[in-house]
Amino acid sequence: MNRSVIALLYGPDQPGLVAKVAGWIHERGGNVLHADQHLDRQENVFFQRVEWAPASNQTPQTESDLFQAMASDELGMSVRMALSDDRPKVAIMVSTADHCFHDLVLRVRAGEWDAEFAGVLSNHDSLRDLSDSYGLPFRSYCVTKEAKTEAEVAQLEWLREEKVELLILARYMQVLSKEFLEQVGCPVINIHHSFLPSFAGAKPYHQAYTRGVKLIGATAHYVTEDLDEGPIIGQDVARVSHRNGPKDLIEKGRDLEKMVLSAAVRRHLQNRVLVYQNKTVVFD
Amino acid sequence: MNRSVIALLYGPDQPGLVAKVAGWIHERGGNVLHADQHLDRQENVFFQRVEWAPASNQTPQTESDLFQAMASDELGMSVRMALSDDRPKVAIMVSTADHCFHDLVLRVRAGEWDAEFAGVLSNHDSLRDLSDSYGLPFRSYCVTKEAKTEAEVAQLEWLREEKVELLILARYMQVLSKEFLEQVGCPVINIHHSFLPSFAGAKPYHQAYTRGVKLIGATAHYVTEDLDEGPIIGQDVARVSHRNGPKDLIEKGRDLEKMVLSAAVRRHLQNRVLVYQNKTVVFD
Amino acid sequence: MNRSVIALLYGPDQPGLVAKVAGWIHERGGNVLHADQHLDRQENVFFQRVEWAPASNQTPQTESDLFQAMASDELGMSVRMALSDDRPKVAIMVSTADHCFHDLVLRVRAGEWDAEFAGVLSNHDSLRDLSDSYGLPFRSYCVTKEAKTEAEVAQLEWLREEKVELLILARYMQVLSKEFLEQVGCPVINIHHSFLPSFAGAKPYHQAYTRGVKLIGATAHYVTEDLDEGPIIGQDVARVSHRNGPKDLIEKGRDLEKMVLSAAVRRHLQNRVLVYQNKTVVFD
Amino acid sequence: MNRSVIALLYGPDQPGLVAKVAGWIHERGGNVLHADQHLDRQENVFFQRVEWAPASNQTPQTESDLFQAMASDELGMSVRMALSDDRPKVAIMVSTADHCFHDLVLRVRAGEWDAEFAGVLSNHDSLRDLSDSYGLPFRSYCVTKEAKTEAEVAQLEWLREEKVELLILARYMQVLSKEFLEQVGCPVINIHHSFLPSFAGAKPYHQAYTRGVKLIGATAHYVTEDLDEGPIIGQDVARVSHRNGPKDLIEKGRDLEKMVLSAAVRRHLQNRVLVYQNKTVVFD
Repeated sequence: MNRSVIALLYGPDQPGLVAKVAGWIHERGGNVLHADQHLDRQENVFFQRVEWAPASNQTPQTESDLFQAMASDELGMSVRMALSDDRPKVAIMVSTADHCFHDLVLRVRAGEWDAEFAGVLSNHDSLRDLSDSYGLPFRSYCVTKEAKTEAEVAQLEWLREEKVELLILARYMQVLSKEFLEQVGCPVINIHHSFLPSFAGAKPYHQAYTRGVKLIGATAHYVTEDLDEGPIIGQDVARVSHRNGPKDLIEKGRDLEKMVLSAAVRRHLQNRVLVYQNKTVVFD
Repeated sequence: MNRSVIALLYGPDQPGLVAKVAGWIHERGGNVLHADQHLDRQENVFFQRVEWAPASNQTPQTESDLFQAMASDELGMSVRMALSDDRPKVAIMVSTADHCFHDLVLRVRAGEWDAEFAGVLSNHDSLRDLSDSYGLPFRSYCVTKEAKTEAEVAQLEWLREEKVELLILARYMQVLSKEFLEQVGCPVINIHHSFLPSFAGAKPYHQAYTRGVKLIGATAHYVTEDLDEGPIIGQDVARVSHRNGPKDLIEKGRDLEKMVLSAAVRRHLQNRVLVYQNKTVVFD
Repeated sequence: MNRSVIALLYGPDQPGLVAKVAGWIHERGGNVLHADQHLDRQENVFFQRVEWAPASNQTPQTESDLFQAMASDELGMSVRMALSDDRPKVAIMVSTADHCFHDLVLRVRAGEWDAEFAGVLSNHDSLRDLSDSYGLPFRSYCVTKEAKTEAEVAQLEWLREEKVELLILARYMQVLSKEFLEQVGCPVINIHHSFLPSFAGAKPYHQAYTRGVKLIGATAHYVTEDLDEGPIIGQDVARVSHRNGPKDLIEKGRDLEKMVLSAAVRRHLQNRVLVYQNKTVVFD
Repeated sequence: MNRSVIALLYGPDQPGLVAKVAGWIHERGGNVLHADQHLDRQENVFFQRVEWAPASNQTPQTESDLFQAMASDELGMSVRMALSDDRPKVAIMVSTADHCFHDLVLRVRAGEWDAEFAGVLSNHDSLRDLSDSYGLPFRSYCVTKEAKTEAEVAQLEWLREEKVELLILARYMQVLSKEFLEQVGCPVINIHHSFLPSFAGAKPYHQAYTRGVKLIGATAHYVTEDLDEGPIIGQDVARVSHRNGPKDLIEKGRDLEKMVLSAAVRRHLQNRVLVYQNKTVVFD
């Protein structure tokens, strides 16, 4: 298939937006392959994902640049552009748990996603050998209270050098500082065990067991300053019973975390997620 | 909210379709509220659902008629139009089971759907009193082998007189003839118990029990000549175990049938379903 | 099928409990139809549901009384007994929403449960006509701040007179007082909209919409003094997207509430639920 | 925790079975940790899983042998025994697809299951390097029409030498002969893509796409002579839409196959599955 251009836009609704976008593409000889709109009628905000094949005499990159300028300047939209053959560089942060780590790496290897792994950052050395066995660069940082700021500076430097475009927290058990998040310059996706009702604090699966819940859940979200309160990309649950002890809940939780995190990363890499007012619009 | 116009179209893809549709609406002063496209790249067929508010000096009905003519004549599309405040007349066919019957009637009563019940057709008298208690016209027909053709003629006549726009088979245990389906002139939605693996023939829940399945399913579909093979609108499953005897499977199946049928009817009444090549495109 | 006896017991684990229970039944000529045990190894508490057919020369009621005495006195267990053909009297409390009300009444009518409806209590008159149409006694009470205590006294009196054995809060929008719960003398089941993350306070579906959740949930639980914190019987979720406004969430929530509440009531009426330390053991 | 003994038994129901089993254990000083019974009332067959800690002066193996003799000789039951610290040897058969292979190996590595991998058998060389990287013995066999019998003989020899106790077909794309199955001497678990409606023959995901299903499914089952018709251990489904092309269905199917196969293997390794009349009783 030829390269196509993908635009994700949102902004104040106004008459004729769909016509203007489609008209611009058509007049330049492009052909729309997929377009999906959403109008938040409460906030009067327009959202669109549009993907098109430019005319054969246009380079996709130029088409993308020109569209971005038009949508931003003439339509007043916030715009994010991508090309269908982009292979963004992805980094993952881990601590000691390896289930999400394996799952993500194997999906990239299986060719499920158009992405390249830049490497693995950790506050532990436990996953170094596994990273080596996958041929992935691995860097560990001491993040004691005193060393945390320094570690984050080094992490940010590495992320910038490697031109990382997506950072995935795959059960990374440290809180990223406000400063880190301001400077990271790319989206950060986290996986959070969340329950019905939700349990904050330590040992959430033990809390869930004590409360006697019949469902456990997981939530994938973009990371913002408010810990675990960022825009939700996806959620799922698994059924548990009185027969399941804390160990079973942890095992079921692991499967859930893998599936929910990878589903969220897939949608992000397919440029299907728009963030607005701490919520997401996910064009499936 | 003011009345809006909804168009469902499909046909051979061609450059500029999205632009032409959006441009036509915009030039006449309309504002697109919702638009969703799908391109079947294997068959090169374009599908669209578009909903818009016409300019205040246009009547929705005229806008709808003009759009239909344009989309059909100029774009070569198959088109179905609706107005946001349409309240199509719906009839249901039942035999003796009443679970889907209650569910459908109560949803209409609760105002979940924009629809009006024309009445109930049956090959039994069992649900007459219930229909009466809901204030719904009820007609029963003898459909023995000999009387079936005559009964179908009478049923068709009633459906035409009542101007029924959607016929729902709510556990109607008779096969509609090819002739009936050719003449009925409105979509017919059926609910079918289907399993993994699927069981044809009598007493499907007993067969499922004998086979030891761990899931039972239900499928809502448009009715075509090929029994139970029409375009699928929605499907769902419920978990069962060795502890569930045939009676439990039947009870769980009833809940499943209610939920799947009503979800399919809802989507149809919201004008979200397009049929093409024995499949559906459901714009959620 | 002949009448069988059902015992639900729990207490401190001790060697030979299963043997003693089974031995007692066997020696008296009974035959075990179903038995399920659970051992909470953290708390060392034993739970059992056992159902058996007494010998033909025993009356089930006597067998039940004798077993209860033995299990309580000799085994030190907390015991609840039931006979397979018990038809407990059930009352429901409602406010204005009718979806759970219809669902419960129709299931009793369809013969899904072995139970009889004693009647409907409400703090509104809205559902009086519906109750009448189902032939159910309906009583409404003014529960303004001043009148609440008096209303609860009257409600308790009615529940006692009618010998109600299960009280179902089917979207009853009032908090029952500590005194009411102490005196009600039968289990009370409530249905609660709970989310990921959960939302307390008014208009939970609007809060869920604002938060941008991708799942909504519902929890059925026994009512205790701690509002919405009683032992959980069952939970389920439904998928939502950015396209679903508050109205859609409310509609999906209604279906969820119906299914989760009726599943919990079914399990309770089948004597499958044991409560211990604010958790439930549900023998499926 | 000390070693416990697990018995899975089934056979014609008779009065006092539960009492006899529990009595035998209790008299020898054992303590029941978990017991679950099921009575198929249609066939009058009794099923039980019972797990107990023998008295401290008994070796678990002797206790197990004695119980087996008693249950078989005195109760007329079919019996399968296991010790809680058994670590059965498991082999997997693969072709070229590696998703189930990775999933199974990583779970054993993560310590989720009490099992040891004996090695990998294949009709291809594609997964040899991966097996090597996991340190697993890998053997490939030519299974052309002419060589198949010879290959199966060699496979059987290897399985016997390695004392394999469970054989998992992890997307193995060859049919095992009747002779192989008769001689293999251990259970064989397969994962099958099954759909609503189910699709036999080649390219099932393409068939599912063409049919326009809204759910795809997977079934894990014991292998019997009737291909894909053996006793079902577990099933699950995933939701698909018109937007999902055959490639998406294959990807979703992969995740489904992994989850359903590993859940079935877990239950088997926990000695929770009893087979009877081409069905399973799964004690959860």
